[in-house]
Amino acid sequence: MESVKQEKIVGIIGGMGPGATVDLMARLIRLTPALDDADHVRCIVDNNPKVPSRIKALIEGGGGSPVPELQDMARRLEAWGADFLAMPCNTAHYYFQDIQDAVTIPMLNLIQITVREVLKQQPGIVKVGILGSTAMQLTGLYQRAFSAIGAEVVYPEPSAQDRIMAAIKDIKKGRMDQAAAALDAAVTSLESQGARAVVVACTELSLLPFASSLPHYDAADILAREIIRVCKWQD
Amino acid sequence: MESVKQEKIVGIIGGMGPGATVDLMARLIRLTPALDDADHVRCIVDNNPKVPSRIKALIEGGGGSPVPELQDMARRLEAWGADFLAMPCNTAHYYFQDIQDAVTIPMLNLIQITVREVLKQQPGIVKVGILGSTAMQLTGLYQRAFSAIGAEVVYPEPSAQDRIMAAIKDIKKGRMDQAAAALDAAVTSLESQGARAVVVACTELSLLPFASSLPHYDAADILAREIIRVCKWQD
Repeated sequence: MESVKQEKIVGIIGGMGPGATVDLMARLIRLTPALDDADHVRCIVDNNPKVPSRIKALIEGGGGSPVPELQDMARRLEAWGADFLAMPCNTAHYYFQDIQDAVTIPMLNLIQITVREVLKQQPGIVKVGILGSTAMQLTGLYQRAFSAIGAEVVYPEPSAQDRIMAAIKDIKKGRMDQAAAALDAAVTSLESQGARAVVVACTELSLLPFASSLPHYDAADILAREIIRVCKWQD
Repeated sequence: MESVKQEKIVGIIGGMGPGATVDLMARLIRLTPALDDADHVRCIVDNNPKVPSRIKALIEGGGGSPVPELQDMARRLEAWGADFLAMPCNTAHYYFQDIQDAVTIPMLNLIQITVREVLKQQPGIVKVGILGSTAMQLTGLYQRAFSAIGAEVVYPEPSAQDRIMAAIKDIKKGRMDQAAAALDAAVTSLESQGARAVVVACTELSLLPFASSLPHYDAADILAREIIRVCKWQD
């Protein structure tokens, strides 16, 4: 039982959206080889759908900054006993440093570990397509991170991106049927621009099936695997 | 926005098993009419699969009492700011009073609200079938609660109950395929004993489809609806 005692506990800054957080928790269970409950990792989760909208704050203006709420969530998870933090929302990583500065425990950076994984699987890649919200594009998070390893990012052309935004909003309402077609159209747009890999950089879009044969990296999946690795000290 | 501010926050004592907790969170999302993230309820969750086994403690002996860990989880959720508690595990309600005594906030009693719902839907019912773990049977929780309203409970005959226990263990390992047939056989056994309703009293079994036409009450579903009602002050 000693190894169980040494496992770390992850604190999850969730609710953006609430379904994406539940999806991450389900991934943690699916991706852990387990014969009984106790083999799974412990996670303490604040599934808080009341965080001010990142899309409103970054694009539409108004609605207030999400920073104070995100910092409060991080502090409460630290006080509760989390050993490290993770946040299943790409766009909210715009506020990563503000959140990390509010606590003394480390926080996984979803953007950094995703870029690292792409580089590991496809060294020397020069063009990567990014699927996510328009707010996430405006943050420039993936653009800067890939630029640092010498790769360029491309986004879906505007009409395809509009459909992606509609799809994200549909998924938040629980409607998945038309969203899959929007994803396919956006991937086609990325491929025609020369992308040799696609990053699914939106936890809502991670809920959809990925039909294309283009190599793709799901940030939610990469985050789940990294959480399990850190919890179980697999270094 | 005033109504949003007044919503209560539920603290979930989870991890028994971890999949059942994720299932409850997914139900909270599915059952809430929502147009955007903020319409959903906030839940703070300790998905702790390291709670000593309830089945071991109640049947097999050994492994230690789960009470200290459950009380610690409850206290931490209260300290974090939960307004009330809920625990998606029928069997662990054997320790309900111990947990409630450890905190000052109220805790929903899954057994009581389930019995109340059956009585509301089928007033005067005299025989109710209970599907759950053998440990849950030994606790006598549903037997006592239904007895108080003048109803008798019946359990699947031993061979059918053995298959139910195997099914629960399979589901904890992520294997669902044979579990559904075990559920069907158990329901047939309950019906042949004169049950006029079935309570699905195990959060693992709630993950399976219920094929019979006998009225059935899923404790996990009833718990999710009650959490939403309390959070949103729908009194």
